[in-house]
Amino acid sequence: VAQAETIAACCMVELMDSAALSEAAASAGNLAIPLVRQLTALVAARDAEASRYVHFGATSQDIIDTALVLQMRAALTLIRADLDRAIRAARTLVVDHRATTMVGRTWMQQALPITFGLKMAGTLDALARHRLRVSQMQARVLVLQFGGAAGTLASLGAAGPAISAALARHLDLPEPALPWHGHRDRMFDCAGVLAGLTATAGKVARDLALMGQTEVAEVAEGGAPGRGGSSTMPHKRNPIRAAAILAAAHQTPGLVATIAMAGPGEHERALGGWQAEWRAMPELIRLSGGAISQLADLLETLEVMPEGMAASLATTGGLIMAEAVQMALAPALGRLVAHERLEGAVRESAATGRPFIDVLAADSVIAAHLDRDALAALIDPAHYLGATALFIDRVLADTALDA
Amino acid sequence: VAQAETIAACCMVELMDSAALSEAAASAGNLAIPLVRQLTALVAARDAEASRYVHFGATSQDIIDTALVLQMRAALTLIRADLDRAIRAARTLVVDHRATTMVGRTWMQQALPITFGLKMAGTLDALARHRLRVSQMQARVLVLQFGGAAGTLASLGAAGPAISAALARHLDLPEPALPWHGHRDRMFDCAGVLAGLTATAGKVARDLALMGQTEVAEVAEGGAPGRGGSSTMPHKRNPIRAAAILAAAHQTPGLVATIAMAGPGEHERALGGWQAEWRAMPELIRLSGGAISQLADLLETLEVMPEGMAASLATTGGLIMAEAVQMALAPALGRLVAHERLEGAVRESAATGRPFIDVLAADSVIAAHLDRDALAALIDPAHYLGATALFIDRVLADTALDA
Amino acid sequence: VAQAETIAACCMVELMDSAALSEAAASAGNLAIPLVRQLTALVAARDAEASRYVHFGATSQDIIDTALVLQMRAALTLIRADLDRAIRAARTLVVDHRATTMVGRTWMQQALPITFGLKMAGTLDALARHRLRVSQMQARVLVLQFGGAAGTLASLGAAGPAISAALARHLDLPEPALPWHGHRDRMFDCAGVLAGLTATAGKVARDLALMGQTEVAEVAEGGAPGRGGSSTMPHKRNPIRAAAILAAAHQTPGLVATIAMAGPGEHERALGGWQAEWRAMPELIRLSGGAISQLADLLETLEVMPEGMAASLATTGGLIMAEAVQMALAPALGRLVAHERLEGAVRESAATGRPFIDVLAADSVIAAHLDRDALAALIDPAHYLGATALFIDRVLADTALDA
Amino acid sequence: VAQAETIAACCMVELMDSAALSEAAASAGNLAIPLVRQLTALVAARDAEASRYVHFGATSQDIIDTALVLQMRAALTLIRADLDRAIRAARTLVVDHRATTMVGRTWMQQALPITFGLKMAGTLDALARHRLRVSQMQARVLVLQFGGAAGTLASLGAAGPAISAALARHLDLPEPALPWHGHRDRMFDCAGVLAGLTATAGKVARDLALMGQTEVAEVAEGGAPGRGGSSTMPHKRNPIRAAAILAAAHQTPGLVATIAMAGPGEHERALGGWQAEWRAMPELIRLSGGAISQLADLLETLEVMPEGMAASLATTGGLIMAEAVQMALAPALGRLVAHERLEGAVRESAATGRPFIDVLAADSVIAAHLDRDALAALIDPAHYLGATALFIDRVLADTALDA
Repeated sequence: VAQAETIAACCMVELMDSAALSEAAASAGNLAIPLVRQLTALVAARDAEASRYVHFGATSQDIIDTALVLQMRAALTLIRADLDRAIRAARTLVVDHRATTMVGRTWMQQALPITFGLKMAGTLDALARHRLRVSQMQARVLVLQFGGAAGTLASLGAAGPAISAALARHLDLPEPALPWHGHRDRMFDCAGVLAGLTATAGKVARDLALMGQTEVAEVAEGGAPGRGGSSTMPHKRNPIRAAAILAAAHQTPGLVATIAMAGPGEHERALGGWQAEWRAMPELIRLSGGAISQLADLLETLEVMPEGMAASLATTGGLIMAEAVQMALAPALGRLVAHERLEGAVRESAATGRPFIDVLAADSVIAAHLDRDALAALIDPAHYLGATALFIDRVLADTALDA
Repeated sequence: VAQAETIAACCMVELMDSAALSEAAASAGNLAIPLVRQLTALVAARDAEASRYVHFGATSQDIIDTALVLQMRAALTLIRADLDRAIRAARTLVVDHRATTMVGRTWMQQALPITFGLKMAGTLDALARHRLRVSQMQARVLVLQFGGAAGTLASLGAAGPAISAALARHLDLPEPALPWHGHRDRMFDCAGVLAGLTATAGKVARDLALMGQTEVAEVAEGGAPGRGGSSTMPHKRNPIRAAAILAAAHQTPGLVATIAMAGPGEHERALGGWQAEWRAMPELIRLSGGAISQLADLLETLEVMPEGMAASLATTGGLIMAEAVQMALAPALGRLVAHERLEGAVRESAATGRPFIDVLAADSVIAAHLDRDALAALIDPAHYLGATALFIDRVLADTALDA
Repeated sequence: VAQAETIAACCMVELMDSAALSEAAASAGNLAIPLVRQLTALVAARDAEASRYVHFGATSQDIIDTALVLQMRAALTLIRADLDRAIRAARTLVVDHRATTMVGRTWMQQALPITFGLKMAGTLDALARHRLRVSQMQARVLVLQFGGAAGTLASLGAAGPAISAALARHLDLPEPALPWHGHRDRMFDCAGVLAGLTATAGKVARDLALMGQTEVAEVAEGGAPGRGGSSTMPHKRNPIRAAAILAAAHQTPGLVATIAMAGPGEHERALGGWQAEWRAMPELIRLSGGAISQLADLLETLEVMPEGMAASLATTGGLIMAEAVQMALAPALGRLVAHERLEGAVRESAATGRPFIDVLAADSVIAAHLDRDALAALIDPAHYLGATALFIDRVLADTALDA
Repeated sequence: VAQAETIAACCMVELMDSAALSEAAASAGNLAIPLVRQLTALVAARDAEASRYVHFGATSQDIIDTALVLQMRAALTLIRADLDRAIRAARTLVVDHRATTMVGRTWMQQALPITFGLKMAGTLDALARHRLRVSQMQARVLVLQFGGAAGTLASLGAAGPAISAALARHLDLPEPALPWHGHRDRMFDCAGVLAGLTATAGKVARDLALMGQTEVAEVAEGGAPGRGGSSTMPHKRNPIRAAAILAAAHQTPGLVATIAMAGPGEHERALGGWQAEWRAMPELIRLSGGAISQLADLLETLEVMPEGMAASLATTGGLIMAEAVQMALAPALGRLVAHERLEGAVRESAATGRPFIDVLAADSVIAAHLDRDALAALIDPAHYLGATALFIDRVLADTALDA
């Protein structure tokens, strides 16, 4: 016990020579071997007998994997906090903009009206699914790795299981049914969940960057003055949070593929695949963590411009509402006739540039059933939002963080 | 209602012209548009009025996504059945070979003894985790997509929610809080879980292929005579199941990266990313399904050769047991002296080729404490298996399929 | 020789039972084995003696790899033709629009004026580089694979080299220095070049899709009426060629990763990696070929709308030209004073919505040096194009297809 | 000119505050902006007038891309040197072991004899192809990027082209036809060539690691004593160079996919894709450079064990030579009868464990045509090497580094 305390007292990062570790790792093949050597020397300088127990019964992979799991645990705690922050910010945007009409766009073309609240409700719904995924993944993934050279704890003799259990308690990590050195599915599990989360962050960044284009001007990134600005181009507000998120979302797919490919490793400790994880997992966690943190910032400080959204809705002079007028005329004219009148009106408005409502009001057949006020109401996007309010209510109910 | 029945009666794959569909899809941009056209023509030939209600209120993506979800549901049912089959086969191997000693290998080098049952217990444990992942994923992923052109169901007016609910009941798919066309995290969720499963299948295939090398000869793929054979090379038993599994495990990482990259799509319907899913998701499901099915076959018919495993354990003439002898001498000699004697013996045996036990028995210091029988017991791999039995028992207890 | 003719006469695709081949491939492990069996049976039915020479000296991989190379040769010929077509179409756009001013955009924000000809000159320049890459790659990659079971041609005895040379002549494929079954760098070489080409096609598609957004309206995809259209939404022109290209560009990165990962295969014939190529290479070639063909179509039929480009240039009311005015005032006012006056004018114009030129003209310090006509000239984007014309001339000179 | 000298004098890495740069980059969106700020402050402290010319006419991307190209140039010089070193080492192995027989293996099973020289000749041939690829790629890729904010050099007025040419001369980089900021094919070109090279390094590492397995023992990694060793397991020689190479080869596919996906970027400066290159390109270059350097070391110091190769050839007791005996009997017995006799002999030897030559010699039909000496010669692997010597000569002729 005294010896254990001596060893523990030497396990201080300040006592280690990091540069020497890096150098020695190249010829040792991993970081654990030179670390154990340095630690053993440190302990031996205090108590030669104690130095015999350094790294006793463990193998390099026990150290490397368990250390990674501890880092993952810490990182996931931060990521969950940022995810919750993003969820709260998304909720606020949903509530504030549940009725802020904007254009829904498909294939990068204007389609039909939606509200910005509905768009954010989709985001909120997805973020809540990721919250569940992270939570379920933590339970599967954050466990001790301790098995000795071949995963049997043989060098610890009969004491192996008790030492393993004590180590698990000490690190506050659950003990798995058996050491998992050769099976990397837990790493891929974590990588996959984080890559999925980053892809959703990227989706939001993509949409907001498209909405922030100079010609669209529906949102802008907020934050400190000067952020993303340019001294020579005052009209420019570079979406640098969106860029950071998208840069992460461009890189996580390749990293998750790398970690998947490390799965089919050789026997009880792989050659190449496991070693590839050493760089890929930390990179992926850093990028994902950065993306979700930037996403929370982006949503919290987003500048929403309803007037820009209204201007986009007006781009086609009401043509995107033709479907609504057609459905109002159908009971009186018959669906087919209604469809033909509307097609003609749309063609004329597009060709001549005359406002759609003027063309409609000038059509005697249409005018016989709908006066100008009725037409104005029909081509008001706010009247053609279908189940938007219901969908928003459902998502708000499902995603309450206290639920 | 009569009109709905007319439409339903026309929804028969035999009535469709698949070749025309394929051709028209190229200029339409997706498969749903020409399908709707063909269906409308079929219905119109029977009832012109009914043809007006074909595809009413839905958009192409509703059809494509919901059809994919239905296919995923069917595929996942098959995959779960094969996964259960693989789990049962792995359990049998664990039970049958819990004490069959073999070499544990790290960095592609012999390390210490394990048992084949322990190796398979690691596989069993991983497969059980995948079973849980598939099950949790099904609950998150298998839901209806139905939102109309921009996800508001506006063209259905006030009837939208009721129609959506009826459709969900009809297809026996849960209705999500809101349409998810723009958020592809559900697709990536399924892709990630299947890629993880395939990576584990690949890990097992890799190990068994390594064990089946001509020089190692510890296992062989079973099955029908002639399978994987060669008429000119009778010593050859090509591991074709392992090859099929590894071929899948080589391809799923790239596919999962593709599907991750489709996540950050544009607005309410993406341009490029969503369309990439159309090929990538079915391929990934096919490859994963094939891999897990082949894995179940492989494990069910595996030919295990304990004598080959024993031969591998004997390759180094007992040198891999040096650690065990050293630990037996430590109490008497002191750890350091024991370590030095063993190092010398190992060097001599390796250099001269004399059996390790002979070298040990000829060392007077060692012989003073351990006679030849004691030494023979110490270098018996079966006596140096640590917590192997405990680990196996835990895994068997955790993974009972009825649990 | 008569026997060779009998065998050749049986090598007809119409004589083969494709369904039986597919089924048998699953248990044989590859397609060549059942093909040889079917072919042997066909030959034996005509001449039992001849059937002994079927597949004589060759191995499955010789057949599979050489067949793939022949398909690659044919595909690359088609791809080069489409690439040349795209290059010609890009040249026409460069020439036609060398002076068509438009907004240059960075970080998805308006930056400074360019011309559409310059934008297309960048595309043309990149396509010409790809043309060189394809050409150099064809020379490295399109060679015979013929080595027998282990790459020595041993079973053909002394006749091996002569038969190999005759086969190469017959197929009009260069003979490599030695069989390359175990080294897959040629496959990756082709995959990489095609993936690079597809990425460039994707870049063009991305830009044109952004320019074709409803709010931007600078280009539209041309082609047959109804193509990409929607009967209910007449304002909509879905960019379906861009979608097809981007869908390919989303998938090729994952495929090229798969083929890279097949490189480190085992020994003289790999287990898993080589088999993964069987699907990945054809898919990648199909997708790349489709993308470049669609790109040529897209460029050939592109509808360019200079008035839309002019409208985008006017979006900020001239603010994007502030840099030009500042540089004209600098000699008189000093750079620093000029910069401060301009910043003030930009702020005022942005805040009040007054046209930038009015604000400038109303500034007494500025007005003292530049009258309204001079200011109007300075904020004319056509006067601030730098080396655009020179760059275009250089690219046109470098990329003449006859050069 | 004096001002330029003042600026140049401040461009010293020692004068910069790296920590402040890192921090500022996060809110600026890239590294160039804070670098320009620091540099401007440094210059201003010496000469306020000179500080006005810092970064004059350039944009952030000019700095970032050109700096990356300069780093790529330096890295490729190192990589070519290591590649040449690997080529020389491979040539030596080819020459030294042109007649060292070993087992050729397919599907991870013993197939037919080859020589280690032939195996290395395949490697040498592939490395020479990569040498050509690197060389052709350098010519396409290593060029200046200088275009100003939107790629027109407008802010430099008429002086733009002359300044660009002078900069190119100063940096000794060719000037491209036009700025290439928006087209990233040059980056992918370099990434692809390096990933291909790394995959080949991985292939060699894979083969040597398989040959170095404890049970196979045909090669071992050389180098300093203790390298890759283990104090407790003296039989263990971990292939740590192979592990490092394979770890790189596992990661480059994902990175090359990331860089491919950055290709389809937005307009004149992308959002997300370009920023992803900042990390991915350096990582890929580092990993590739490390892999090729390790490969050269591995080949230069490889310990080849011909006796281990001979032992592997003997594993099946001659069964892998059955094809050779059969072909010797065919002229006398007829091919079919010969085949049947051999099949019987193979089955008997495999079933009883009797040496294959004894079984053959005891078969009266065979013995009538081939005496024991003749049989011994036939089952000598050295006599069944086909065109091995010719293939080796060709590769040696093609790959002479002075050629």
